[in-house]
Amino acid sequence: MKLLRYGPAGSERPAILDGSGQMRDLSGVVADIDRTTLAPDMMAKLAALDVESLPKVDGTPRIGSAVARPGKFLCVGLNYADHARETGKEPPAEPVLFSKATTALCGPNDDVEIPRGSDRTDWEIELGIVIGSRAKYVSEDDALDYVAGYTLINDVSERRFQSERGGQWVKGKSHDTFGPVGPWMVSKDEIADVQNIDLWLDVDGERRQTGNTKTMIFGVAHLVHYISQFMTLEAGDIIATGTPPGVGLGMKPPTFLKEGQVVTLGASGLGEQRQLMVQA
Amino acid sequence: MKLLRYGPAGSERPAILDGSGQMRDLSGVVADIDRTTLAPDMMAKLAALDVESLPKVDGTPRIGSAVARPGKFLCVGLNYADHARETGKEPPAEPVLFSKATTALCGPNDDVEIPRGSDRTDWEIELGIVIGSRAKYVSEDDALDYVAGYTLINDVSERRFQSERGGQWVKGKSHDTFGPVGPWMVSKDEIADVQNIDLWLDVDGERRQTGNTKTMIFGVAHLVHYISQFMTLEAGDIIATGTPPGVGLGMKPPTFLKEGQVVTLGASGLGEQRQLMVQA
Repeated sequence: MKLLRYGPAGSERPAILDGSGQMRDLSGVVADIDRTTLAPDMMAKLAALDVESLPKVDGTPRIGSAVARPGKFLCVGLNYADHARETGKEPPAEPVLFSKATTALCGPNDDVEIPRGSDRTDWEIELGIVIGSRAKYVSEDDALDYVAGYTLINDVSERRFQSERGGQWVKGKSHDTFGPVGPWMVSKDEIADVQNIDLWLDVDGERRQTGNTKTMIFGVAHLVHYISQFMTLEAGDIIATGTPPGVGLGMKPPTFLKEGQVVTLGASGLGEQRQLMVQA
Repeated sequence: MKLLRYGPAGSERPAILDGSGQMRDLSGVVADIDRTTLAPDMMAKLAALDVESLPKVDGTPRIGSAVARPGKFLCVGLNYADHARETGKEPPAEPVLFSKATTALCGPNDDVEIPRGSDRTDWEIELGIVIGSRAKYVSEDDALDYVAGYTLINDVSERRFQSERGGQWVKGKSHDTFGPVGPWMVSKDEIADVQNIDLWLDVDGERRQTGNTKTMIFGVAHLVHYISQFMTLEAGDIIATGTPPGVGLGMKPPTFLKEGQVVTLGASGLGEQRQLMVQA
């Protein structure tokens, strides 16, 4: 299943893609793609639907973030060895964890704001995990049982706010629109191997990032297990799992996003995103 | 107005204190004390109520967190010069910002869990700001217009998870029950001077922290203004504003919480909390 949300920001409606990629409206079945809908019982109900009988969504409406109002928007840092090195850091001994404000969430093709006073707005393509059930102190062996599915994320980051404004990365990760999520959340049964997903990101059509989740330092199951030792994960929570090499901070010289530039990114099975940079 | 929530965890009902401190049920007026209720129009409606005509709440039910499902649970670090020094750090040049998982939220008198593997669970009494309206790039002069009220918070922290587990404080701040909030949220009109609130915290009846918000490095208006430069604050968001001296980490030798100990804390106008330490 590929679940998504369409319509104006703040009043999106739930939808599902049919076998031909046509969007079908889910409003008659669930209120939204949120923590209620992502729970296993509702996911089972959606999986049993006759999708072709649902109303078609006409035209090409805006796509919203694939998940509505997550309780948490967590991120793992430096989770690809090559990316850790390009930022001048050693690969971490255990996962580096930080959070984005949930207000950073936006649709996959929404304009991304360059914050006022920013000169280091950067891109980071990432595989996103969407949690399906409450996970506290879960084992690595059981961890994937708590996952509803996966999505594509651009973990947009302001490097100066992140590292030079008095500590703790959340400051550089939380500006509005710094979290494009989607176009859809694909249920985990449709991903044959989550540790073999290709990722790519372009800026103005030039390739900047190329990677595959097989080179993650800590895989998806380990991350869910690990995070659940520190906090309780709930249905709808989103975890961005770190970015492969090729961010602007790692370029020589470091190169950052400017108003008018366009970032496009995609991942096998997870769809594509396109964002125009605008000034906040 | 003093707004609060009572009843079993997960199914609390909204309430308000009358002039004699008696709890009155608000279920007939609002669904919960949350982002909808904390918006200015609803707060004005509540302020106009004849509180004495509302149903009395019988007995002594459990009190829940003063705010339901905030979008953000932000914290300011090292915001009292004396506390910064006791942790071995210089007072910061600008506010240190980090986040707690919103799942850490609990009632003011709920048991607090010592996480598995923890040997450094610590206390931190703090003034909490509750946001009332959407705040993005707001000036310091206007900042208090975006505040609904204030509450009492124990920013419970695991120091080893915070500082020795691979970076970013969120790991040591987010365990379930690490965020007792309440007993109530007092509307800002009832606080004559938010920069003159006494704070105290005891462990097993021995005084550990004594402070007053007048010694904050960055005051409430500056914090709301400052944070709104990095992310958008929304109604219901909670900001813990930092702790005065006297945390366990600063004792000689450092001293941390053990199963069976009881933490009590209070603040002028904000009520009191009491937590029994239990093992997770």
